[in-house]
Amino acid sequence: MADTAKLGGSQHERPITRLVGFSDGVFTIAATILVLEIQRPADAHHLLSGLLALWPSYLAYALTFLLIGQVWANHHAMFDHIRASDWVLLLCNVLLMLMVAFFPFSASVLAEAFRDGAGQRTAVVFYGAAFALGSAFFNLIWHHARRARLLGDTIDERTEKGFTRRFGLSVPLYLAGTLAGAFVPVLGFAIFAAPAIFFWLPLGQRGSHVRATGPAAR
Amino acid sequence: MADTAKLGGSQHERPITRLVGFSDGVFTIAATILVLEIQRPADAHHLLSGLLALWPSYLAYALTFLLIGQVWANHHAMFDHIRASDWVLLLCNVLLMLMVAFFPFSASVLAEAFRDGAGQRTAVVFYGAAFALGSAFFNLIWHHARRARLLGDTIDERTEKGFTRRFGLSVPLYLAGTLAGAFVPVLGFAIFAAPAIFFWLPLGQRGSHVRATGPAAR
Amino acid sequence: MADTAKLGGSQHERPITRLVGFSDGVFTIAATILVLEIQRPADAHHLLSGLLALWPSYLAYALTFLLIGQVWANHHAMFDHIRASDWVLLLCNVLLMLMVAFFPFSASVLAEAFRDGAGQRTAVVFYGAAFALGSAFFNLIWHHARRARLLGDTIDERTEKGFTRRFGLSVPLYLAGTLAGAFVPVLGFAIFAAPAIFFWLPLGQRGSHVRATGPAAR
Amino acid sequence: MADTAKLGGSQHERPITRLVGFSDGVFTIAATILVLEIQRPADAHHLLSGLLALWPSYLAYALTFLLIGQVWANHHAMFDHIRASDWVLLLCNVLLMLMVAFFPFSASVLAEAFRDGAGQRTAVVFYGAAFALGSAFFNLIWHHARRARLLGDTIDERTEKGFTRRFGLSVPLYLAGTLAGAFVPVLGFAIFAAPAIFFWLPLGQRGSHVRATGPAAR
Repeated sequence: MADTAKLGGSQHERPITRLVGFSDGVFTIAATILVLEIQRPADAHHLLSGLLALWPSYLAYALTFLLIGQVWANHHAMFDHIRASDWVLLLCNVLLMLMVAFFPFSASVLAEAFRDGAGQRTAVVFYGAAFALGSAFFNLIWHHARRARLLGDTIDERTEKGFTRRFGLSVPLYLAGTLAGAFVPVLGFAIFAAPAIFFWLPLGQRGSHVRATGPAAR
Repeated sequence: MADTAKLGGSQHERPITRLVGFSDGVFTIAATILVLEIQRPADAHHLLSGLLALWPSYLAYALTFLLIGQVWANHHAMFDHIRASDWVLLLCNVLLMLMVAFFPFSASVLAEAFRDGAGQRTAVVFYGAAFALGSAFFNLIWHHARRARLLGDTIDERTEKGFTRRFGLSVPLYLAGTLAGAFVPVLGFAIFAAPAIFFWLPLGQRGSHVRATGPAAR
Repeated sequence: MADTAKLGGSQHERPITRLVGFSDGVFTIAATILVLEIQRPADAHHLLSGLLALWPSYLAYALTFLLIGQVWANHHAMFDHIRASDWVLLLCNVLLMLMVAFFPFSASVLAEAFRDGAGQRTAVVFYGAAFALGSAFFNLIWHHARRARLLGDTIDERTEKGFTRRFGLSVPLYLAGTLAGAFVPVLGFAIFAAPAIFFWLPLGQRGSHVRATGPAAR
Repeated sequence: MADTAKLGGSQHERPITRLVGFSDGVFTIAATILVLEIQRPADAHHLLSGLLALWPSYLAYALTFLLIGQVWANHHAMFDHIRASDWVLLLCNVLLMLMVAFFPFSASVLAEAFRDGAGQRTAVVFYGAAFALGSAFFNLIWHHARRARLLGDTIDERTEKGFTRRFGLSVPLYLAGTLAGAFVPVLGFAIFAAPAIFFWLPLGQRGSHVRATGPAAR
């Protein structure tokens, strides 16, 4: 980065803007193409029952859409405070995007298994592992940004600690859901849904506060 | 929002910009992938009749494209006057996006039913319910923004009342179409088409005026 | 527009920016999802022949991609000089977008017909009609913008006349291709390809000049 | 470009901004729809084995995602230094985009062949040829920009030489992979993966330096 440092501060923001632009695109497209994985009922003569039988697809669609939206909001909250990037950050972010763009597939596997009533344990583990891996890359970005001093001065000690705590929770939570799902699929499903519920209906002042500062922070 | 308030006014716009960016992406992608739900005629030897038999798909495609375009334009007209967001607004908007991204599926169900000549009532109800639910979330955003004083001073009393009237009309209208469609499918279809026609060919001075201020307002 | 006029000039650009943003999204997504219509050869044991047999898909893909790219470039050249919008312009533009988003389907119908060696005349007519209709909406935008004085002062008489001539050529050309294709499919295909070749390899000084001012004009 | 030159420097940047915007869209969408080519295992009763059997799809997905990400980063590094465009540049860029949007298809062909254990040589050649062709267009853009003096003064001799060397490497490398793959498919696959590994885990100071200046350069 020696050469680029010479180019002055403004140079530093540009790769970030661009990186955030690419990431935003992946988040938005991944969330919107989730619906393409829902297959229309084949039998038009029993359309109502056919549409009702798709409930796992609707559930997987809604859950994954909300989870992607949550990762997107957290990604923005995080990058609002990152002022420069290096190759480790670029690598971790592209690997995170690799997982985000993969979620529509794991969501469809999950839905299909619950529709068929077979392979649910495998499907929940597959779904949870994808999110756990994505969260791992997410946390690697954050920890590297702190270690490598890539954070701007717009973030105070308290918010930084709050982010570390909040982001850090996701990996064990997804792993717990994955493990629980290997035995009781529905329990795994419920554990994956928990963060989305906590995030989108902020329960407790702290959650609300952290979430609120996130998107609104500089 | 206490902490973020300290950061000054410009901080408030940023989440809105971002939220509008994500929403624009969902609107645009949902409208453009509608076409992926249209299946090519299988029999190439009677292609003409095959393509003509797809008329319900073309109709559902055009109707849904125009309705998504209308929600998009109204969404912009609304967010032109919203200066800050909170978690209720974020939640309602992500739920609205969840419905918008779902429209390509309900459109394909509608088209399929009219092509097969079976399950049309179910399909119209399914299609209408999705739009009614989306409109409900849309109105929740608007009413919360007014109640929670998230509106900027760029909007005058008259425009605000005009928006409330116009946005409020959509829910009962979609519910009427859904109800009518449960008995006379084509009637439901016609009622869903009405707002698009009123919106895109503004009939009457008021309609034209409200629509014109919408997209053009600051 | 009376009220919005009061809001001052800058207000006028905003709907244009937004309208161009939505249009850009549709152009880009439509071009990129074209590939989803190409079906993988089923028989892996004769993959080479299977991939070679897809030549009509590759041709339709490349032709449609270049045509969409051309409409996109012309759309930008046109909107570089449009300073305000009204409901007629919004309507014509949403109908143009409706056609652009439909091109991936007509392209797949065209490719399928040439692969099967059946229904080629129908497919070429279907493909050409979609482009002719799109061009008609395109020209309606331009003519309305001129009639309704929505053009800025950034455009000189000569460029305006050049645009009118160039845009006007497309409708008769697509109609000619459609008509010719109804009798000699390959001829229709060739006539559709002509504008793309003329556009992307500007032949003759004028062509090059008009194309060059287009994208580069203010 | 004579006329546009009169319009002053700022005019020159606009087509670039727009061109980069369109290209960014294609890169992002192509990378995100890669996942749509992965087909869900049909047999839900042996889901685990079904998901494991998809390893070639996961590998092709990850490899293609990283390669697209690399082309995207290099495209940005290149256009950070291009101040104006002409029709040759526009043509080469649209042809590059044509190839980028095609990668999801060649990736699915590659994955399918490795899953079926048949047609692997053909698939690797098909996959490599697409990337080699894309790289050729990429290098044409760069060489034309240098020859036609479309580069800004933001780039120094050393960086320019570094780009020429780095970009130039890709074509022979993809051709080598294509040729090797025609005999030993897995070897071709490995050769395609090499640049991604070199790029995303910059090995050696020079690699790291070139990569770092790329995205961060003005």
